[in-house]
Amino acid sequence: MFSKLLIANRGEIASRIIRTCKRLNIQTVAIYSEPDEDSPYVKEADEAYPLGGSRVHESYLQVDKVLDIAKNANVDAIHPGYGLLSENADFAERIQSEGITFVGPTSDVIRSMGSKVEARSTMKRAGVPVIPGTSSSTKDADAAIEAASDIGYPIMLKASAGGGGIGMQVVNNDEELRKAYESNAKRAQMFFGDGTMFLEKKIINPHHIEIQVLADQKGNALYLFERECSVQRRHQKVVEEAPSPFISEQTREKMGEAALKAVRALGYQNAGTVEFLVDENQHFYFLEMNTRLQVEHPVTEEITGFDLVEEQLRIAHGETLRYKQSELTIHGHAIEVRVYAEDPKTFYPAPGQMTDMQLPVGDHIRHELAVHSKSFVSPFYDPMIAKCITWGETREDAIERMSYALSQYEVEGIKTNLPMLRTVLNHDIFKQGNITTSFVEEHYLKEEAK
Amino acid sequence: MFSKLLIANRGEIASRIIRTCKRLNIQTVAIYSEPDEDSPYVKEADEAYPLGGSRVHESYLQVDKVLDIAKNANVDAIHPGYGLLSENADFAERIQSEGITFVGPTSDVIRSMGSKVEARSTMKRAGVPVIPGTSSSTKDADAAIEAASDIGYPIMLKASAGGGGIGMQVVNNDEELRKAYESNAKRAQMFFGDGTMFLEKKIINPHHIEIQVLADQKGNALYLFERECSVQRRHQKVVEEAPSPFISEQTREKMGEAALKAVRALGYQNAGTVEFLVDENQHFYFLEMNTRLQVEHPVTEEITGFDLVEEQLRIAHGETLRYKQSELTIHGHAIEVRVYAEDPKTFYPAPGQMTDMQLPVGDHIRHELAVHSKSFVSPFYDPMIAKCITWGETREDAIERMSYALSQYEVEGIKTNLPMLRTVLNHDIFKQGNITTSFVEEHYLKEEAK
Repeated sequence: MFSKLLIANRGEIASRIIRTCKRLNIQTVAIYSEPDEDSPYVKEADEAYPLGGSRVHESYLQVDKVLDIAKNANVDAIHPGYGLLSENADFAERIQSEGITFVGPTSDVIRSMGSKVEARSTMKRAGVPVIPGTSSSTKDADAAIEAASDIGYPIMLKASAGGGGIGMQVVNNDEELRKAYESNAKRAQMFFGDGTMFLEKKIINPHHIEIQVLADQKGNALYLFERECSVQRRHQKVVEEAPSPFISEQTREKMGEAALKAVRALGYQNAGTVEFLVDENQHFYFLEMNTRLQVEHPVTEEITGFDLVEEQLRIAHGETLRYKQSELTIHGHAIEVRVYAEDPKTFYPAPGQMTDMQLPVGDHIRHELAVHSKSFVSPFYDPMIAKCITWGETREDAIERMSYALSQYEVEGIKTNLPMLRTVLNHDIFKQGNITTSFVEEHYLKEEAK
Repeated sequence: MFSKLLIANRGEIASRIIRTCKRLNIQTVAIYSEPDEDSPYVKEADEAYPLGGSRVHESYLQVDKVLDIAKNANVDAIHPGYGLLSENADFAERIQSEGITFVGPTSDVIRSMGSKVEARSTMKRAGVPVIPGTSSSTKDADAAIEAASDIGYPIMLKASAGGGGIGMQVVNNDEELRKAYESNAKRAQMFFGDGTMFLEKKIINPHHIEIQVLADQKGNALYLFERECSVQRRHQKVVEEAPSPFISEQTREKMGEAALKAVRALGYQNAGTVEFLVDENQHFYFLEMNTRLQVEHPVTEEITGFDLVEEQLRIAHGETLRYKQSELTIHGHAIEVRVYAEDPKTFYPAPGQMTDMQLPVGDHIRHELAVHSKSFVSPFYDPMIAKCITWGETREDAIERMSYALSQYEVEGIKTNLPMLRTVLNHDIFKQGNITTSFVEEHYLKEEAK
């Protein structure tokens, strides 16, 4: 196994990775920006080095600095976590060229999945269902309008290099499409340095359901079932669960097989997630592939017994997967909530000084923490401060545990989304389990506005 | 189900019971002494009433006060937790005569197991193996010495009404026995109001292994496998695990069947624990039966998926057990450590003002807390401040997780046994899994003294 690993990330995922490394006796190296100096993960790592700077561009995205630290600390592997440089193909390539192992897939796979247009055509060729839409970038608004007449409105306009909901918009007619095209192409150019756009048919009342995959370097691959992530605000997941309460056993198997098709077509290695939209008739369509660990990976760990970080490290180190698909089963049900420092009504970030934090304890209540009870939550990064995960024999048990946990959860000094999470977990529609991606808008925001 | 439950206890077990009640929608009533006013469980309960007083005799053992509160609060059940009044047959009887349900076995079963001499003869009649010894109390030191010649030294002298190691002593010859008899009979009289003593053959290098049982009011009973609790200091358990790494599958089954014999012979109802000593040849001998929930019950919950408090409540409410013995399996391995406010070298209680507490978080790390991070740990009660439980697919995984958890566990302002727990968890003999009840004395204390 590796002897020393640098974690090119921050917050809860850095702590999460350190935890598995300690268990596997791997030394850990943390890196940190100025505002993160006091973060728990910095203390938990065996070594920690400052990057300087505050904003991610001045700190965590400074590839040269990160590589210098890695070389000086003499690490043999780098784990990129999620976000930041985790899906940056150039970073992965530079790491490998320094003779250090990148804990993730090869750089060309990252690159091909980074372009949504290329990902889409790769999947189509591999026989994975994709959403009807343009199979390549549209040249301009006129070309987009022409393509739209074949697809049929409503249509989702998307930035080819997009992420986090940026550059995405639903349009219902030619006029809306033209207007949206111009403004979103400009934003995409600004955010991603790439203004190319494409179109997809808008799926009505879709579920966001994703398949976790693991693939070793010898061509063996597994799917670790699905996660339902339909509770979203600002196109970001807030509550995730596994398994999905919506899909049938048959759909689960079909989606798993489709994800493995994608893995085989790509020659994919390491952990990855194939995201799908699933319509009300359980038809599923490829959305995108995330070539890294996901924020919501713990729900999969809870129902399968896998430590996904451990599996990532073993695969990166050249080990063969230790299980066969037929040996995997779903054990119970797990739910994760993301606790954000944000206004629970507007979803705007609410950074600031925490004065206290009380975490619920008990059976099958798991925490992943980015902060300590007196942390200053910086305005420079994603305001997620913690995740709470509960497990139960049944979905009802897991929900009851989460409701209890949220009732005992206290964060003082700053605003958080805890009130929103409590409302969602106690909502009848959530309890019934048929949640679509419009749940927050239709059920939470409308009811809060009353 | 019950609508309102009084918890006749304090600390972590009160919080533990409240948690299950919240999940089952049962209102909870807490009672508290003066030093406990600021305890987490008081805040967590739906209602809380002061008992006044500090020492247990002035507060939690005041049966009249507890019953008055129960009647005034109009509860339909009382859960006694462990310790305090939990094995007081008169208390159980008084509760029942008030038309309130006692969450535990019937008072006559509690009474018969409360006398070690009676318990021993009951078990012998039921066909459960008992340790060779006197089958009734010895009249005086002379009678004891006469009995000793049949049993053979070394012999364990025990108080019939004993508990917590009080009134217990190993003796190796007639002279030691005479001396020990007199002093221990006096102590037993003082502590328990009952100075009767009996003798048992001292088992060499025994394991303390206990079987968890559940029995409903309709004659159905289950054993939920065993807990190994051999790591003890001052005759009190410190580290417990399930399953035992020592016994064979065959011994497990035999011990389970023996525990069920005991249950049937007693007409036992509710949760209980049959404790055994197991010698190096896997012969096992009845030690005592605890007619209540045990401190270490979470390790059984972790490997079986049961919520034992929920099962207790369901049984007390007249429900039938929902499983058959053949449906139960052991899932992975769990370890519990008890965190005490005590000197890690002398094991003397070290109460005082806590100034901070950092709990490790992560997958399969469970906490049960008696305190908050700024609690004053009172000198009036057992100094256990928390329990930490880890689970893993294998014993090795569970130990690795616990080692990690202990490395991250911080309590400031008072002394705790955390250094001792870290030493035990990282000790080769502990890791090998063949731990006897002399482990702390032979391996921890001797090595610390160097």
